[in-house]
Amino acid sequence: MPLMPLPDEIRPASGTLAIGPAFRVAITGYRDPIVDRAVERLVSRLRAKTGLELHSIPTAGPDSALLVHCKASDPKFLSLGADESYRLEITSTQASLDANGPAGILRGLTTFAQLVQPASGGFAAPAAAIVDHPRYPWRGLMIDVSRHFMPFDALLRSLDAMEWVKLNVLHLHLTDAQAFRAESKVYPKLHQQGSDGDFYTQAEIRELIARARDRGIRVVPEIDVPGHSKSWLVGYPELGSKPGPYRLGNDGDTMDAVLNPADEAVYRFLDRLFGEMAELFPDAYFHIGADEVNGVQWQQNAAIQAFMKQHSLPDGHALLGYFTRRAFAILRNHGKIPIGWDEVLAGDPPPDVVVQAWRSSQLVAESTARGLPTLVSSGYYLDYAMPASFHYANDPTNPAAFGPSEEMLKRLAGTPLESYMPKNTALIPGSKLSDEQQKHILGGETAIWSEMVTGEMFEGRIWPRAAAIAERFWSPASVRDEASMYARLATVDCDLQLIGLQHREKSARMLHRLQPDASTVLEPLVDAIEPVKYHARLAARMRNPALGGAALNQVVDALSPESMGAVAFRSNVRKLLLGSDDFAARAVRMQLTVWRDNHALLAAIAPRSFAIREVFSVSEDLSMLSSAALEALDYLSQQKTMTPGWSVQARAVIAKHKALAAGNSDMLTSFLSPTLPPGEVMISVLSSIEDLINAAEGPGHVASAVKTIE
Amino acid sequence: MPLMPLPDEIRPASGTLAIGPAFRVAITGYRDPIVDRAVERLVSRLRAKTGLELHSIPTAGPDSALLVHCKASDPKFLSLGADESYRLEITSTQASLDANGPAGILRGLTTFAQLVQPASGGFAAPAAAIVDHPRYPWRGLMIDVSRHFMPFDALLRSLDAMEWVKLNVLHLHLTDAQAFRAESKVYPKLHQQGSDGDFYTQAEIRELIARARDRGIRVVPEIDVPGHSKSWLVGYPELGSKPGPYRLGNDGDTMDAVLNPADEAVYRFLDRLFGEMAELFPDAYFHIGADEVNGVQWQQNAAIQAFMKQHSLPDGHALLGYFTRRAFAILRNHGKIPIGWDEVLAGDPPPDVVVQAWRSSQLVAESTARGLPTLVSSGYYLDYAMPASFHYANDPTNPAAFGPSEEMLKRLAGTPLESYMPKNTALIPGSKLSDEQQKHILGGETAIWSEMVTGEMFEGRIWPRAAAIAERFWSPASVRDEASMYARLATVDCDLQLIGLQHREKSARMLHRLQPDASTVLEPLVDAIEPVKYHARLAARMRNPALGGAALNQVVDALSPESMGAVAFRSNVRKLLLGSDDFAARAVRMQLTVWRDNHALLAAIAPRSFAIREVFSVSEDLSMLSSAALEALDYLSQQKTMTPGWSVQARAVIAKHKALAAGNSDMLTSFLSPTLPPGEVMISVLSSIEDLINAAEGPGHVASAVKTIE
Repeated sequence: MPLMPLPDEIRPASGTLAIGPAFRVAITGYRDPIVDRAVERLVSRLRAKTGLELHSIPTAGPDSALLVHCKASDPKFLSLGADESYRLEITSTQASLDANGPAGILRGLTTFAQLVQPASGGFAAPAAAIVDHPRYPWRGLMIDVSRHFMPFDALLRSLDAMEWVKLNVLHLHLTDAQAFRAESKVYPKLHQQGSDGDFYTQAEIRELIARARDRGIRVVPEIDVPGHSKSWLVGYPELGSKPGPYRLGNDGDTMDAVLNPADEAVYRFLDRLFGEMAELFPDAYFHIGADEVNGVQWQQNAAIQAFMKQHSLPDGHALLGYFTRRAFAILRNHGKIPIGWDEVLAGDPPPDVVVQAWRSSQLVAESTARGLPTLVSSGYYLDYAMPASFHYANDPTNPAAFGPSEEMLKRLAGTPLESYMPKNTALIPGSKLSDEQQKHILGGETAIWSEMVTGEMFEGRIWPRAAAIAERFWSPASVRDEASMYARLATVDCDLQLIGLQHREKSARMLHRLQPDASTVLEPLVDAIEPVKYHARLAARMRNPALGGAALNQVVDALSPESMGAVAFRSNVRKLLLGSDDFAARAVRMQLTVWRDNHALLAAIAPRSFAIREVFSVSEDLSMLSSAALEALDYLSQQKTMTPGWSVQARAVIAKHKALAAGNSDMLTSFLSPTLPPGEVMISVLSSIEDLINAAEGPGHVASAVKTIE
Repeated sequence: MPLMPLPDEIRPASGTLAIGPAFRVAITGYRDPIVDRAVERLVSRLRAKTGLELHSIPTAGPDSALLVHCKASDPKFLSLGADESYRLEITSTQASLDANGPAGILRGLTTFAQLVQPASGGFAAPAAAIVDHPRYPWRGLMIDVSRHFMPFDALLRSLDAMEWVKLNVLHLHLTDAQAFRAESKVYPKLHQQGSDGDFYTQAEIRELIARARDRGIRVVPEIDVPGHSKSWLVGYPELGSKPGPYRLGNDGDTMDAVLNPADEAVYRFLDRLFGEMAELFPDAYFHIGADEVNGVQWQQNAAIQAFMKQHSLPDGHALLGYFTRRAFAILRNHGKIPIGWDEVLAGDPPPDVVVQAWRSSQLVAESTARGLPTLVSSGYYLDYAMPASFHYANDPTNPAAFGPSEEMLKRLAGTPLESYMPKNTALIPGSKLSDEQQKHILGGETAIWSEMVTGEMFEGRIWPRAAAIAERFWSPASVRDEASMYARLATVDCDLQLIGLQHREKSARMLHRLQPDASTVLEPLVDAIEPVKYHARLAARMRNPALGGAALNQVVDALSPESMGAVAFRSNVRKLLLGSDDFAARAVRMQLTVWRDNHALLAAIAPRSFAIREVFSVSEDLSMLSSAALEALDYLSQQKTMTPGWSVQARAVIAKHKALAAGNSDMLTSFLSPTLPPGEVMISVLSSIEDLINAAEGPGHVASAVKTIE
């Protein structure tokens, strides 16, 4: 079934429900404008998926193809208590969707829309009985709109994509050192002087929230304090911990600038600002960041040092705790439940504060052990440019899923980075959360931080990978087959494009502008490469001012963090090695032939193309590897073995690329000592090509290649 | 130079002007908001073309990279007398653009924007001195928004594309039998009952006109009378020539329904409606259609017959002449210059009426011989799905360019179609327009009629082909090298995508939805096929009600009328056969290999895909032809000759496809006896493959293959 996330329970039946021009939806039971508009959206998406001219006006006719029955209104709609469960039954003559409330109807309608696919005789949905509800009530996507501004229309499209995969919280990281992106009428210099002119007006924010509401999606604002606040200080330097002036742009203040926790005026400012934002954002929750305060400017300010002594605050952690407790209290006065990043754990937060773990899964264990409501983001950062399978394998309840190693923590002790590190939270393999701890997990959030993500690549850096994480948050923990996930992800990827996402289009445009008269020459290469992983690109730019100022307009910027072409290739190689799949064998051979032969075309254009030169050596290596893999295929299909030494050159290239990949083997390593390969890209089909070569080395190697695959 | 249309005069110089992050534009001379906004658009398009974060605020700095100098305002801006000439000089340090008025600045800025391309060291514009002005002052695109509604945002994007290739008139065919698409406040039942709910509000029309004005584009409305008016009669049946009721949808009234020219109330109605539209559309010109009146319902109405006798109007042509003269007079009272399709020639139009020739180029000769201002659309209809080269080869001054043959006219005499045919206007080969006649040509319009064009395929059915026609209307008549045109068209095609057109994206979406889990399998085929030509698809649907009701959601609907992949392939085959172009030879071989091998993949998916089955046999034939062409390549590269008979099978397939193509060899034949090939598609690389096979037959054949190419 082409579903993502997979439902809790699905019983396939025989037959299919044909979707033709006569398709109609009938709504019965509790009638709600949200349900009506959701049905309109369903029909418009089915139009996009089928090209049929379907009627969008719901009927009451019992002979309609889809009967939608909402039992009652739900006073808990758009809260953690909302009932998102639904039952969907599809037979060869009719489909019926039943839910207790509007949220369940929303979720069930996207399940139905996903199921409609082309088939042998036309478009149809497979017969099935589905009973479904989410694993977690909080399934979020956090978007950093500060480092790079994300166009408003792209945010609106994100809501459609989120609805499609049943994510239900849009967390907006609205402010950071680089820009303050929400219009403030109370303190207008925040967005006027604290941005380059790109911010969301309050009218836009209200429109976004209304659209999100229609899709059963909550919008949670994050106003990050006391660090990450340089943009505030451009217009209001008096709030800072050192005298101004401050300016936008990367400088020493970017990480150091911090609000002055010793100044009562700061809390009065926050009270008015949080009050304004609390009204603008109706959700019950409100995020205040509180992450990554390095304390440098607190140490340099005598008044703050005196304040700390006076209040018996021994260090920066304690001072941060003091500040956050005051900020939490202000939020509570405005009727909000506060959220902070996992740094708040060090400040002894009150029991209602939601802790969002990001630095280590071990902090999920700590937070839940302390009985605090917890959101899991550790291991779900999309800006790491990791494959969907990496995030998919992380379970929110696994305290060893993601985080710095003991060795890494030791290495950073005494360095300036130590202040950012979690305390005593190195991964503990094999440890498990207790049932009691698990109850405190509200859910999770995937996140896209935008230092290296511009508005035009925004959608492609989130989708389709976020769909796999959405499944992790919605479906039972037992749903974890990677091959099944990738097969379904390919369909979701196409679906997202059909319902309006522009992730593929933007990527194609970025690529085409690099060589308009020969853009087809870049296309085969693009299927085989991916951006370098984790923070390597960002860290290299932070070290090299020349690189740092360069526009993000290279081949690597046009790439998807995970090439779906490479995913398909890997899957076909797997099928080829596991048995006699004729389609897979032919597809692999055709793809390898194109990769082998395309390099000569690329080489002909390289002299006049700065963009192609960047990836020239990668294309050359890919061509050589493809050539070796084709030789391997020839031998495999003829059941011969290769002569010794035939693969020496290919193995050297594979080893070179493996070493490059190992240079950024984890997040902190990529940050501390980034390894930038040529073009800042990786060959994403490296292991599949290695599998083919291994297999051709002889029967023993076939077995071992198959083993690494399984 | 990657320019389309080519300028009147261009002198290349040495060096290039680098376009980097410091790029600035300075405006001097006459300052106009239109110029300011044009510079903003330039910068935003350069951003899209380069990915650089460029500053859009113009400076006055003489050291800016681009100096824009507008001499004065132009009272004739947005009229036929507007001065669109400009001079652009680009050196390796600076570019300067000079024009007498804003229109010239607009045209020069797009020339500059087109010139910016990636180069060896980054983005740059080549040094050159350009002096330019248009051949014709009227260079239009007519869009039929009635048969299918074209989304408003797609119309807005069309304005950007038009500006990019210097088209300056958007002619909107707003009303037809199928729908009335302009909001009328005077007679609201026109758009309310005369459409399916899709129409443009007056606010939208005003926005469209304002955006067009900014781009130096006039908007000319067409309200088609007295035929093509069934949609009016749904709400106002009393205006018709037979008693109502009328209904939307295809029925016998679609071509027959016609306003009653004997009823004074009809002229009062037109007076109020034209008055309203004349105010809404500020342009000096106003189109009243007047085409394709078959007179059937006039003959059946006794009162109309009596009226004709009373006014000495011997036949339908004379009655149409009476009606149009009354309509022209009404328009003149509202301050407008009338336009009609070439049918108005039969009604002795007053000398100020603009005649738009469409049925035959011979009518250009007739209209200009009678001293009437003339627009040429004959030979420029984009809905024929013909290649750009077909339109490009037609010169507006060639009276033998396009039209029914003498033989065809004889064949239609006495049939119901005769009433639609031009009188005595069969093509006269070799005839030429006199200089005096040529002076009466205002220019030309390309047109897209939308019986078979939906909103989602709209952009792809116009672009990029319309760019070649734009060059025909702007550039000197001597600019006619087809190979040069196609090389530049490929770049313009990419440019259009970069500045926001969605022709490629929409096509990709339509294709992907047909097989979301294996859409890549359709992609290679799509590069090699095109929709069947002329009216074959429409005519087949008119004859077959079952086919007529089918959604336009097949593979053929996703295709571009001319595959740019096939254009590139043809060009590479040409280079390969003409000499030793290594790039071309490799590209041809790789493409043929993919076409040969892809069919097996497609065949594996066909059983479960209705869409793939439609094009299955075409893919099979393409695979076989590619295999033969690869054999031919092998022999050519080894300088051997083939054994006799090797190509028999391929030649049979080629003959079969040639016969299918010949079935729709011209517009009227395709209409009268449509030949629908499998999938309603043609193999667009047929002749190139034949060239390769011919060349491999021996030296004599190489020469003849080369000869057919040249």
